[in-house]
Amino acid sequence: VLIDRLAALLPGPADPAREVWVGDDAAVVARPAGPLLLAADAVVAGVHADLELVGLDDLGWKAVAVNVSDLAAMGGRPTHALITLAGPLAEVDIDLLYQGVMAAADTYGCPVVGGDLSRAPGLVLAVAVAGDGAGREPLVRRSGARPGDTVFVTGALGASAGGLALLRCGRGGEAPDLVEAHRRPKARLGAGMAARRLGATAMIDVSDGLAIDLSRLAAASGVGLVIDHVPVAPGVEKAGPDPEALALGGGEDYELVFSAPGPVEAVEDGFAAAGLPPPVAIGRCTVDPAERVLRGGPLPMAGWEHTW
Amino acid sequence: VLIDRLAALLPGPADPAREVWVGDDAAVVARPAGPLLLAADAVVAGVHADLELVGLDDLGWKAVAVNVSDLAAMGGRPTHALITLAGPLAEVDIDLLYQGVMAAADTYGCPVVGGDLSRAPGLVLAVAVAGDGAGREPLVRRSGARPGDTVFVTGALGASAGGLALLRCGRGGEAPDLVEAHRRPKARLGAGMAARRLGATAMIDVSDGLAIDLSRLAAASGVGLVIDHVPVAPGVEKAGPDPEALALGGGEDYELVFSAPGPVEAVEDGFAAAGLPPPVAIGRCTVDPAERVLRGGPLPMAGWEHTW
Repeated sequence: VLIDRLAALLPGPADPAREVWVGDDAAVVARPAGPLLLAADAVVAGVHADLELVGLDDLGWKAVAVNVSDLAAMGGRPTHALITLAGPLAEVDIDLLYQGVMAAADTYGCPVVGGDLSRAPGLVLAVAVAGDGAGREPLVRRSGARPGDTVFVTGALGASAGGLALLRCGRGGEAPDLVEAHRRPKARLGAGMAARRLGATAMIDVSDGLAIDLSRLAAASGVGLVIDHVPVAPGVEKAGPDPEALALGGGEDYELVFSAPGPVEAVEDGFAAAGLPPPVAIGRCTVDPAERVLRGGPLPMAGWEHTW
Repeated sequence: VLIDRLAALLPGPADPAREVWVGDDAAVVARPAGPLLLAADAVVAGVHADLELVGLDDLGWKAVAVNVSDLAAMGGRPTHALITLAGPLAEVDIDLLYQGVMAAADTYGCPVVGGDLSRAPGLVLAVAVAGDGAGREPLVRRSGARPGDTVFVTGALGASAGGLALLRCGRGGEAPDLVEAHRRPKARLGAGMAARRLGATAMIDVSDGLAIDLSRLAAASGVGLVIDHVPVAPGVEKAGPDPEALALGGGEDYELVFSAPGPVEAVEDGFAAAGLPPPVAIGRCTVDPAERVLRGGPLPMAGWEHTW
């Protein structure tokens, strides 16, 4: 049956005497060296992925990557993934979907050790990841930002939203990098760990949009925000007349935004020393918890709307 | 929004300085004392739960209980749960569903520390659990049964299938115990840990039917099966003319079947000493891996059919 074919596809543990992956009632794996990290996020066809525009393999990749991104946003790293696929299985190319799942699991070092398969009316790929929070510095929550901290983002924004906009009007060929950013979002694992080592006080990944996600961080921390600058990914101008709006509200870039005290150069140099692109200082945290300012005006709050 | 209301409903960690549960990018919890156990199983409305016959709270309970049962079948215990709910959220009584989730999480000691909520065409409740495999004896796989081992089941079977059959013809009132067994299946955590301590060589939970699940254990272990006796739960005769068929093929009882060498009395006494009902010896493992015998005839293989 299907589940056996799938089990044959998935790699097994290096030490089968000590670990159990797919094929028993539960997986048995080594415990983490530090605190246990756990996250779960689902990708639903038609809600988080339009299968007219992206492949099932892209959907599989994304479901793993968004979970890894959640651990990256704490400064942790993933160790194992559980994959639950519910949907009209007879109509779904499960091999293709799993190609994307396994590519992401391989890229981010979190082998698939278990999961479930079931019929359901719509395609839901529910992923859970376990991770390891080992490290000298504390894991980075959303709530630790302090007035005076600099706000950084690990890269330019708007590429995923720009790619989606171009795909929707059949112009994906004009900007392959943007399309790739939409189809295969990257989790910034290395950047998250670097930010933690370098003293980040709060961190979140940009899944719903910079303005919304940064506001969540500010609200959890009880600080205000004054943003001077929004780095827009190259090429986003091809997708529409207001590239900054896509960068602010598009979401799904999975760059990390974090706050850190002290000199900006120390953080930039720390990223460079780790071989990572320099994070961009975009503003600062302020005392008034209600303040949300972009270059003197209000920070526009458009972004991914949860429609329920 | 919904996710904030849910977060307010769910209990938080005893030590918020060390642990993060719902509300950040990922949960941060204490690592297990032994190996990390991981399992994921989904309950889909219309596939694993008929909402004409059971409540949303029952569906929520079941989704957690079946995951806990997977850990019980290794001889482990759960520590944390992740709950991903995808469905037509505007039409779903999420509070009621979570009442069942939280009742099970509380009963089995695995607080909900994270998850996801999303729109989807059909209701899918995808649960993942983390657990702790600490203990002197090895965790119990499906593959360790040896010829000569006795086969035990931790309790009588057929109650859930009987309850469902009665509910389907509007006769649930005739057998409240069977209906309860169907609506609120129990995970046999204590029995799984006892079987492990007492030297169980292989174990599986009865989710799809005794005959099918026991055959999986035998196939993984490379042994044959000679079954003498199928304990039928009291009252199953009310549900149909062949109660043993419901006990053999009905599934969803979540009793554990396990193999163990040595005298039957040692296992029975060990369960009694732990304050648990005695397991029932139902047969033995044999040398011929193709043998599947029930009282001299072939073991009937009817049971839960995965329809994909």
